[in-house]
Amino acid sequence: MNQSDRILTNIKVVLVEPSHPGNVGAAARAMKTMGLSRMCLVAPKSFPDRQATERAAGADDVLINAEVVSSFADSIADCHYVFATSARQRSLQWPTFTPSQAGHKARHLIQSGQTIAVVFGRENSGLNNPELQMCHGHIVIPASSIYSSLNLAAAIQVICYELRINLLEIESLPELPCKEGDLGRPITVKELDGYLNHLESTLRSVQFLNPTQPRKLMSRLRRLYQRAELDDIELDILRGILSATQKSIRKEEKTYV
Amino acid sequence: MNQSDRILTNIKVVLVEPSHPGNVGAAARAMKTMGLSRMCLVAPKSFPDRQATERAAGADDVLINAEVVSSFADSIADCHYVFATSARQRSLQWPTFTPSQAGHKARHLIQSGQTIAVVFGRENSGLNNPELQMCHGHIVIPASSIYSSLNLAAAIQVICYELRINLLEIESLPELPCKEGDLGRPITVKELDGYLNHLESTLRSVQFLNPTQPRKLMSRLRRLYQRAELDDIELDILRGILSATQKSIRKEEKTYV
Repeated sequence: MNQSDRILTNIKVVLVEPSHPGNVGAAARAMKTMGLSRMCLVAPKSFPDRQATERAAGADDVLINAEVVSSFADSIADCHYVFATSARQRSLQWPTFTPSQAGHKARHLIQSGQTIAVVFGRENSGLNNPELQMCHGHIVIPASSIYSSLNLAAAIQVICYELRINLLEIESLPELPCKEGDLGRPITVKELDGYLNHLESTLRSVQFLNPTQPRKLMSRLRRLYQRAELDDIELDILRGILSATQKSIRKEEKTYV
Repeated sequence: MNQSDRILTNIKVVLVEPSHPGNVGAAARAMKTMGLSRMCLVAPKSFPDRQATERAAGADDVLINAEVVSSFADSIADCHYVFATSARQRSLQWPTFTPSQAGHKARHLIQSGQTIAVVFGRENSGLNNPELQMCHGHIVIPASSIYSSLNLAAAIQVICYELRINLLEIESLPELPCKEGDLGRPITVKELDGYLNHLESTLRSVQFLNPTQPRKLMSRLRRLYQRAELDDIELDILRGILSATQKSIRKEEKTYV
């Protein structure tokens, strides 16, 4: 296990009475892609099941290690803080979090040594009120008001994604090591100026730029190449194009004069 | 359509050569839950397909309205900015974003009137290099290094979620209107002090608190009830419990004295 991923083992994902084995398998896959591995199934309709194993793809180890219990109370008894997930906000006021806010909260809880559970309800009816009230906080995915019915595994994917992002504090992607010849060093202003002068004289040669009516052409081109943040390899290519252009103009002149 | 959701119609989700109709249906469902509706399929293996419609559940309108084209170039020709999605960072340096960073970027692009595409590759092999290079930016979901293979629809769910969160600038859930009798008004410090005095005298009565050795009991209880952020209805319940306790002690005294 990756050192930084170890923190994610303090999270248990609980599925209450899942009825479609395919969803259980897809849930295992969703969890494993985000580094989570502790699954608990409360009275699953069919488990183990070939369909679950198929949909789990490379995450069948999550299924093999899954805990199976008969009551919801048993599933969360060893946890310190329990998040319920709910498709909509309920009329009963309860601490309610977006997935991102729940990720923040989970980070603080785990940093203080707590084990947390995230509970997902039945495919058709979710969690009932007594179950919701056994949980410390509720997570609501801010879905479309027109159609808010996420597939079970899809909801697990989103919430495990936010747990991963927040617990591992991932804000950006790691820098890739530069491959030889792939990326050059950034160019200086002086080098850009040199290129733009070369470009301007070439544009005159091809009679694209009329020096008596320059309009805003060169400043537009400067803005374009500044925005592109050229490196020295690209600069060599662009200057090479200009040199080749000027060379062929001179040839033409020689041929036709 | 919800007024605020209209901004999401400027995003086209492109699936390149999807081979499992079930994934196409699940993709439609994932999109619609996040308020996205424009799907484009490049040379799908089977479309329309009964399995796709089943997995789409209530999102079959996304399938019905889907655009089907024969080449990748056709799918993105009318877009201004194209994000590719990739399971891993490639050795070729290209502007690369986390889903959240891509959501930020998409917001700025759409605010300046641009139409964007988000492209998802084949289930088994993703996008090839020429396809990746036709895209302006790459999105990488920061998955586990041990197992990074998200299901196609699961990847679409995560990225559409981040697009929704960022484009609609959703940072927290909307405040629910308070139901009569559900939630009271917060209590003042004076009210909390009144309760703690009542509690302290009751704890003496039940001989839980020894006034000559109070230890830190009352300050611990104060901290607990401060953290709970009581409302006036809860305060009435707690004081009611104390009154009932004291009343039954006095009865006991009368009975046995």
